[in-house]
Amino acid sequence: MLLRMSTLFVRTLREDPADAEVPSHRLLVRAGYIRRAAPGIYTWLPLGLRVLAKVEAVVREEMAAIGAQEVHFPALLPREPYEETGRWTEYGPNLFRLRDRRENDYLLAPTHEEMFTLLVKDLYSSYKDLPLALYQIQTKYRDEARPRAGLLRGREFVMKDAYSFDVDDTGLEAAYQRQREAYQRIFSRLGLDFVIVSAVSGAMGGSGSEEFLMPTPIGEDTFVRSPGGYAANVEAVTTPVPDPLPFDDAPAAHVEDTPDTPTIETLVALADERFPRPDRAWTAADTLKNVVVALVHPDGEREVVVVGVPGDREVDVKRLEASLAPAAVETAGEADFARHPELVKGYIGPGVLGRANTGREDAIRYLLDPRVVPGTRWVTGADEPGRHVFDLVAGRDFVGDGTVEAAEVRSGDPAPDGSGPLELARGIEIGHIFQLGRKYAEALGLTVLDQNGKAVTVTMGSYGIGVSRAVAALAETNHDDAGLAWPAAVAPAHVHLVATGKDQAVFSAAEELAADLVGLGVEVLYDDRPKVSPGVKFADAELIGAPVVVVVGRGLADGVVDVRLRRPVGGGEGRPQGEQVPVAQAADHVGRLVADLLQG
Amino acid sequence: MLLRMSTLFVRTLREDPADAEVPSHRLLVRAGYIRRAAPGIYTWLPLGLRVLAKVEAVVREEMAAIGAQEVHFPALLPREPYEETGRWTEYGPNLFRLRDRRENDYLLAPTHEEMFTLLVKDLYSSYKDLPLALYQIQTKYRDEARPRAGLLRGREFVMKDAYSFDVDDTGLEAAYQRQREAYQRIFSRLGLDFVIVSAVSGAMGGSGSEEFLMPTPIGEDTFVRSPGGYAANVEAVTTPVPDPLPFDDAPAAHVEDTPDTPTIETLVALADERFPRPDRAWTAADTLKNVVVALVHPDGEREVVVVGVPGDREVDVKRLEASLAPAAVETAGEADFARHPELVKGYIGPGVLGRANTGREDAIRYLLDPRVVPGTRWVTGADEPGRHVFDLVAGRDFVGDGTVEAAEVRSGDPAPDGSGPLELARGIEIGHIFQLGRKYAEALGLTVLDQNGKAVTVTMGSYGIGVSRAVAALAETNHDDAGLAWPAAVAPAHVHLVATGKDQAVFSAAEELAADLVGLGVEVLYDDRPKVSPGVKFADAELIGAPVVVVVGRGLADGVVDVRLRRPVGGGEGRPQGEQVPVAQAADHVGRLVADLLQG
Repeated sequence: MLLRMSTLFVRTLREDPADAEVPSHRLLVRAGYIRRAAPGIYTWLPLGLRVLAKVEAVVREEMAAIGAQEVHFPALLPREPYEETGRWTEYGPNLFRLRDRRENDYLLAPTHEEMFTLLVKDLYSSYKDLPLALYQIQTKYRDEARPRAGLLRGREFVMKDAYSFDVDDTGLEAAYQRQREAYQRIFSRLGLDFVIVSAVSGAMGGSGSEEFLMPTPIGEDTFVRSPGGYAANVEAVTTPVPDPLPFDDAPAAHVEDTPDTPTIETLVALADERFPRPDRAWTAADTLKNVVVALVHPDGEREVVVVGVPGDREVDVKRLEASLAPAAVETAGEADFARHPELVKGYIGPGVLGRANTGREDAIRYLLDPRVVPGTRWVTGADEPGRHVFDLVAGRDFVGDGTVEAAEVRSGDPAPDGSGPLELARGIEIGHIFQLGRKYAEALGLTVLDQNGKAVTVTMGSYGIGVSRAVAALAETNHDDAGLAWPAAVAPAHVHLVATGKDQAVFSAAEELAADLVGLGVEVLYDDRPKVSPGVKFADAELIGAPVVVVVGRGLADGVVDVRLRRPVGGGEGRPQGEQVPVAQAADHVGRLVADLLQG
Repeated sequence: MLLRMSTLFVRTLREDPADAEVPSHRLLVRAGYIRRAAPGIYTWLPLGLRVLAKVEAVVREEMAAIGAQEVHFPALLPREPYEETGRWTEYGPNLFRLRDRRENDYLLAPTHEEMFTLLVKDLYSSYKDLPLALYQIQTKYRDEARPRAGLLRGREFVMKDAYSFDVDDTGLEAAYQRQREAYQRIFSRLGLDFVIVSAVSGAMGGSGSEEFLMPTPIGEDTFVRSPGGYAANVEAVTTPVPDPLPFDDAPAAHVEDTPDTPTIETLVALADERFPRPDRAWTAADTLKNVVVALVHPDGEREVVVVGVPGDREVDVKRLEASLAPAAVETAGEADFARHPELVKGYIGPGVLGRANTGREDAIRYLLDPRVVPGTRWVTGADEPGRHVFDLVAGRDFVGDGTVEAAEVRSGDPAPDGSGPLELARGIEIGHIFQLGRKYAEALGLTVLDQNGKAVTVTMGSYGIGVSRAVAALAETNHDDAGLAWPAAVAPAHVHLVATGKDQAVFSAAEELAADLVGLGVEVLYDDRPKVSPGVKFADAELIGAPVVVVVGRGLADGVVDVRLRRPVGGGEGRPQGEQVPVAQAADHVGRLVADLLQG
């Protein structure tokens, strides 16, 4: 494979694109791999398409290795199957919906559980047909509210989605493990660092799921790890519930004047001044903060809900949203407050919240942090301007309509399994695997006959890799200030061959070397441009990022070419040194070097 | 590559699917290659996907051979570029349109001229950057009014679309020729018979185009050929215009009572009876038939138009539509006639039609067949019930608002280039190449600087192959009553290996042979199902259609296996004879056979 810079459809850019926030986006655009067509929608240029194809090939090989069979579904799908599982509605505004000329409803599929379920129902009928694993590499659509970071969060993107079909839970567990191990091999082969974390299943449903996250500060997902091996997406972290406290001796609740204390900070300061505790100073953790949010349900209904959390913690909207899926969470606005005059901003308390506290069927739903166990005592709003209630005891003076995982998770919080304090980090979701169970099979009637001729509902798993996102993740992992620096296995070419100067002999020698390398199976990107300066050529080579750079130039007079690695091997730092190799041995030398790099 | 029937995701059907009209659709569904997901929208099963991938590989090789570079565009595109070229509107109801969550308009692209134009504009700026040829293999969308015939006319389908960019017409001509020759090689390699015919460019625009049609009676396109080498899609056939006739001596037109003659047939009969010609009997060709149609313009406007054709010819709606594109043609309905009370059904004549004849600006547009040249004399409607006008002379008594190619083309009609009488046939459009010229570059401002630093508008070509349709065309070409019979180059597997009986030795020998064949690079589909009868296995082998069938069964006791071709080579007829091959030589024998078949 020989690409020539003189004809390759690429233009490198010296400037960062204005809308690019992260290195992968910046560099993939600057180096001519992708180009924006619309928000969150990208065109693949020749270099980008080559990397994408190599990633796809790795995915295909590992799927084949676990016996998954490739199929290909349409992206444009009819509404009905998604209606039957409820996802037509549950996906809310994330789903691209459209109508055809006969006014039938269609969608652009974000994922294909329904269609795979129906296809297997269509073809298979016996337990003997199972286990089965199918997959596709296919273009998916999701109308993201905030498409960002180039390929990392797009609205049209390439996914590998696999689905397993088993007759029982043991089968599902085994299928899940096979996929999990295949994912580990795929990401290892791609050289992507990853952490497997417990996750919430969200709109997908099912009994459990894990995410493969690539740790990076620019990641959109926050996850936690404990010294004892607990790892979870922050949305999946559960709060250890303290034991209830006795409260027989607790003083009665009492309302106090607390003028001008609309914030936790002002409240704590005033409490210390006017109502000092005998044992210690008040802290924000003694207060119960009641946060008003609006839930937007998939059917469009808007519901005002109040979340009660210890005053030293913020509400984490992503955690709240994960807890209340498929509803979306929005900040409560003036209209929401206007509909609920009982909410006195800055002084909201349990007195006007929840069915049990108010005795009203139409009371605002009140959800409490799991730490608010019976017997805990709180300072909180008294539902009047400038007044708070002290010594309000949970379980005695108020209850919630349920608990909710909404409070932020903080570094140092205890892991739910007792494995030590949590540490937080950020990552990019590069894979997500789900034990779906029978949700889809039940909704769509996928059963098979078992050994006794009895119909049993099939149990399913679903397994996704963001293939286009993996290209971005690779770029995040493999770059420096000068540009991209691909691992050989996914590089658009193995060798970037640069001819410098004006001497025809240089170009002839480079041409010959290119041909020799191609003959050895090496993929060469040959910079044969006659009137471009060496500086520009070197900068392009560094920006484009093929792993081996070969320069045919001044050294040719002494019978040598310069061979260097785009980046040091084995984690060494500093600019890689060039190596002088005699022209006659250059092809063999470079061929071996490439073979070594491909071996990893 | 080894596929096992015991685990392959396939179920063959003995019955034809109810909605399948043509053999390719019937057999691709029955043999488990594709499955319908929605009208005109199909899922590729493992066997189908393998054939599709092989066709794609041939296309890629031939595109690379002419220096076209592969890119990949989104399918979901913003409205604006298509608005600028007018196609957002021109495509009418054939375009899938949708809105995103911000209420911006998007479309699912049926073709990508606009986006390629903008991409090249984005990257290139000099004549030195050209010529350039880009292509993609990508999923396209078209909301067909009547999706039919499985993959032949779908609403989601795979296309290879290529685009050329040149600085001048000579360059475009050369690029067009390169693509044309690449298409000839692609279809030849696939073993698809084709005819290259002149075509109309339709919504694509541009100065000229040719279609590659595969001749078949089930084709949707009609084309013509002459002994002298003229070939055209019937929509592109132009009518040779006769010389005008002198009409100084022609009698004056005269209106006659012709009661109960609403059809040409009744009119001719009555004319012969009451107004006999001295020289010969009247024929339908002496009458001028005025056919009322409704044009639906892309903006939704409905216009009643009358087309005047010799009474012995029908109006061909597809030809009329091609002539009047982008308007769609519909049958005129009662509401149309109600809006135009001047139209007396069965007796419509030029007297109420056209601006010049009526002197009215708002007269119904009147378009005439090219044969209606000045001096021709006609019997036609007198715009009163039961009355016709005789000796109405074109150019003296009436004119049209223009001419139109609307009359049906008939076998025996003269070729427009004088190359003899036309013969009609039907075909499937498998490729279409366009000299677009500057339409898109002008609309979107794609210019480059020429040698003198002057901005010149780029000239473009566009070149499409229906890749998924080619799979159907291959199935149309390669089947018999028993099933599919693929050429080796595109077959899902080279060898269908069948083990029959219950003898474990048979399965062991077959297993070993399969492994040996795979070792030789042969793709094997091994029917290893233990409890399936030989009859079912043979029927499946014939239905699925791998080119070589190897049977390990009863002969094994005599040390032989049965090797046969799915269909005779070299056009011979009759059921292919089996050949007995010693087990020990079977792998080599079959390997050579496959190699020979792949050589063609």
